[in-house]
Amino acid sequence: MLTGYSRGARSRESVRSEHAIYFPEAHARCTMFVLVNLKAYPCDPIEVATAAADVADDSGVRVAVAPQAAHIDAVAETGVETWAQHVSPNEHGSHTGSTLAEAVADAGAEGTLLNHSENRLKLADIDGSLAAAERADLETIVCANNPAQIGAAAALGPDAVAVEPPELIGTGTPVSKADPDIVTGAVDAAARVDGDVDVLCGAGISTGEDLVSASDLGATGVLLASGVAKADDPRAALEDLVEPLN
Amino acid sequence: MLTGYSRGARSRESVRSEHAIYFPEAHARCTMFVLVNLKAYPCDPIEVATAAADVADDSGVRVAVAPQAAHIDAVAETGVETWAQHVSPNEHGSHTGSTLAEAVADAGAEGTLLNHSENRLKLADIDGSLAAAERADLETIVCANNPAQIGAAAALGPDAVAVEPPELIGTGTPVSKADPDIVTGAVDAAARVDGDVDVLCGAGISTGEDLVSASDLGATGVLLASGVAKADDPRAALEDLVEPLN
Amino acid sequence: MLTGYSRGARSRESVRSEHAIYFPEAHARCTMFVLVNLKAYPCDPIEVATAAADVADDSGVRVAVAPQAAHIDAVAETGVETWAQHVSPNEHGSHTGSTLAEAVADAGAEGTLLNHSENRLKLADIDGSLAAAERADLETIVCANNPAQIGAAAALGPDAVAVEPPELIGTGTPVSKADPDIVTGAVDAAARVDGDVDVLCGAGISTGEDLVSASDLGATGVLLASGVAKADDPRAALEDLVEPLN
Amino acid sequence: MLTGYSRGARSRESVRSEHAIYFPEAHARCTMFVLVNLKAYPCDPIEVATAAADVADDSGVRVAVAPQAAHIDAVAETGVETWAQHVSPNEHGSHTGSTLAEAVADAGAEGTLLNHSENRLKLADIDGSLAAAERADLETIVCANNPAQIGAAAALGPDAVAVEPPELIGTGTPVSKADPDIVTGAVDAAARVDGDVDVLCGAGISTGEDLVSASDLGATGVLLASGVAKADDPRAALEDLVEPLN
Repeated sequence: MLTGYSRGARSRESVRSEHAIYFPEAHARCTMFVLVNLKAYPCDPIEVATAAADVADDSGVRVAVAPQAAHIDAVAETGVETWAQHVSPNEHGSHTGSTLAEAVADAGAEGTLLNHSENRLKLADIDGSLAAAERADLETIVCANNPAQIGAAAALGPDAVAVEPPELIGTGTPVSKADPDIVTGAVDAAARVDGDVDVLCGAGISTGEDLVSASDLGATGVLLASGVAKADDPRAALEDLVEPLN
Repeated sequence: MLTGYSRGARSRESVRSEHAIYFPEAHARCTMFVLVNLKAYPCDPIEVATAAADVADDSGVRVAVAPQAAHIDAVAETGVETWAQHVSPNEHGSHTGSTLAEAVADAGAEGTLLNHSENRLKLADIDGSLAAAERADLETIVCANNPAQIGAAAALGPDAVAVEPPELIGTGTPVSKADPDIVTGAVDAAARVDGDVDVLCGAGISTGEDLVSASDLGATGVLLASGVAKADDPRAALEDLVEPLN
Repeated sequence: MLTGYSRGARSRESVRSEHAIYFPEAHARCTMFVLVNLKAYPCDPIEVATAAADVADDSGVRVAVAPQAAHIDAVAETGVETWAQHVSPNEHGSHTGSTLAEAVADAGAEGTLLNHSENRLKLADIDGSLAAAERADLETIVCANNPAQIGAAAALGPDAVAVEPPELIGTGTPVSKADPDIVTGAVDAAARVDGDVDVLCGAGISTGEDLVSASDLGATGVLLASGVAKADDPRAALEDLVEPLN
Repeated sequence: MLTGYSRGARSRESVRSEHAIYFPEAHARCTMFVLVNLKAYPCDPIEVATAAADVADDSGVRVAVAPQAAHIDAVAETGVETWAQHVSPNEHGSHTGSTLAEAVADAGAEGTLLNHSENRLKLADIDGSLAAAERADLETIVCANNPAQIGAAAALGPDAVAVEPPELIGTGTPVSKADPDIVTGAVDAAARVDGDVDVLCGAGISTGEDLVSASDLGATGVLLASGVAKADDPRAALEDLVEPLN
């Protein structure tokens, strides 16, 4: 399960101390987790990170940013909650070109995406990467295409899963509108396997309305990418996004 | 769920007509499924296939052989139940070098292994290969390393899963002896996710005693490889294997 | 270097005895090698193979067919020269789901494609697969995208390389028209590295005119796929293709 | 071709201005390039980087360090020449979990390894990653197993290639002793394809004597890993290594 936190001042220390806090159903939207995936976009990661940190502080909404591994250090220094886009399944050792979980944690990451549709992993490697993340004290979100794969991902024990139909990624058409059944199907599939695994909603999310729809379908967070990272004004895009949660 | 069948005459037609038959708990061992994986061994696939067909006929035990894709045609002509070692997730189309499910079925395969530890697949591709196998009317066994991955594999809806700790493959030390908890853990993990998914036991199985141990731990079949394929006398090895089931 | 042969009666035996024969520049087009890649198309491989065998016999042009591995046996029985679409780099051993070079040779394959753009391989695996093909006495064609990669492929010592710009595959626009420089660039790149490596031309080839253009640019053969495999009348498509060579 | 530089004060600026300088044969050993690959070792990257920067300054030998991507920023801040262990073939865009060449350059990397035996790449991706590195103004070293693959790698136009027989990596037995023919074979193979491509020698290098042997066989640099990264005293290990060059 992902950690949540309420409106109010935010710092990396305070988030950590709030692990294990969870919010009652009535205030579910307040706990929506917003993860901005910067992919390999030609954006300024520091600009987006600073905006995300400010919006998180102002709104009380949990907002994190997942930059390139080489930018984790600089992004974390802005004070924003920072995630890796991927970690490798290996432990310390002879693994040239790997993304060591301990290294991204050391640079400031607090969590990691795994198995994004642009970076599909072997089943055994998702399991290995989850173990690596746990060793490095990183939270985890495993992405998957459809409810069956969401069930499979949930069986591996991540903190959360994210359903992202590949055909909707980057389209601007939110999955919550284009295919609400896939979101509720994912929520059901995860719940059947492990009731402690949160479900996030990815693909096409860009507005506050999309966020509310996702919440109404049972998601406890969203993955965004181009809607913020490629926006002319990332801060305004994030403010618009979290506005309905206030 | 894998199909089973009782002692008696066997032909490819009769097996097919027996789909959906299942045996009561009391005779569970009679329904143990024995799949001999020929991998890329330098054995004569026709010799092993003929022996397997004869032992299946004589004992009433379901025995199948999984040869190289290029040998499926010749192996199926011996009358033995024939499986593929892998099928690709793709449909018909522009997929050079793929192993099309429809092609292996056309050549005589009745089922396919997936995600063997020597051929680990992406989670999304296991899902895709299961869909491909279903289109081609192939039974499916998804291999995995440990109970967590077995749960994940079961969530994708195969007929069966097979637990094979990589460190025991090819050792001659049966998983049922070296690590019985991993077998019962796999049986439990699969049952929690989908009670219709059979659990097979692989890695190190070579004797009738190993088969009985696997059955006692809740497995409904076994994967074998070197114990038969590299035996001086594959027929004798198979006879020894199924002897306790009679 | 690929083997060639002239107009006249053809049998698998005669082709083999003609290895090492090569045709003088003046009759270069007679030696154009035509390889029909059936990919995972929903075609009848026996129909295409029979047509290819007949057209090869009638025209004296070397025509081969590359079916799915599971169809090699049945395709080779038509008498057509049969190729694999891929072989794995491994030797005999514990390699479940591999495509063992010895197995495809055993089923009747006389050569193999490697590194097709739909099945890109690691550099080390192309090297390993070439060694595997050599052990199994298979001829080899390594595909690549552009002249630099063609030079790299040639450095590994295959019989031939094939240049196939990915953006033209399946378009019906022949690379010899759309981008003749890439073909002459490939011919130059291969010649600089190893003058014994033939260059074939793939991507968009479908007519006799395309074949002549490819030959004029320095190619000694062509890869085709949909133009024959998806034709309403594969025999007529092949007859049209080789007509200018007679 | 890799840049070299002579004994004397060193700064990241001065190295860059010295691109294109090359040393005459008589002083070849002065230009040996020493790249310390930190892999995923549990070492302190800053400690090794600081030692490497000091040894480079004191000896005038070009010494660089290749840390985890997430540590590039902190390592580069020590003033040592910093390399990536890998970059992905993609450009800016939707590539979650990639290692964008521009991002590692932005963090301070001046070059990148590619195709290390622990991170084998597809031929097409080596080509793509070289293009990505060029866009980001990174120097490149492509690793390979044997002379044939070295020739293939050289055909793709990197600055340098490195021959590392996988069976010697991490053994402490230098390739220059265990198999000197593979080094001279690699030097010949690269020269035949492209005389501008430097050849480095990896696998088992740990002492100054190994460095001299590599130089005598025609290598213009070495890759090291455990010999420095896992040494009790990395600074002493590096001093020992470069001692014969002074």
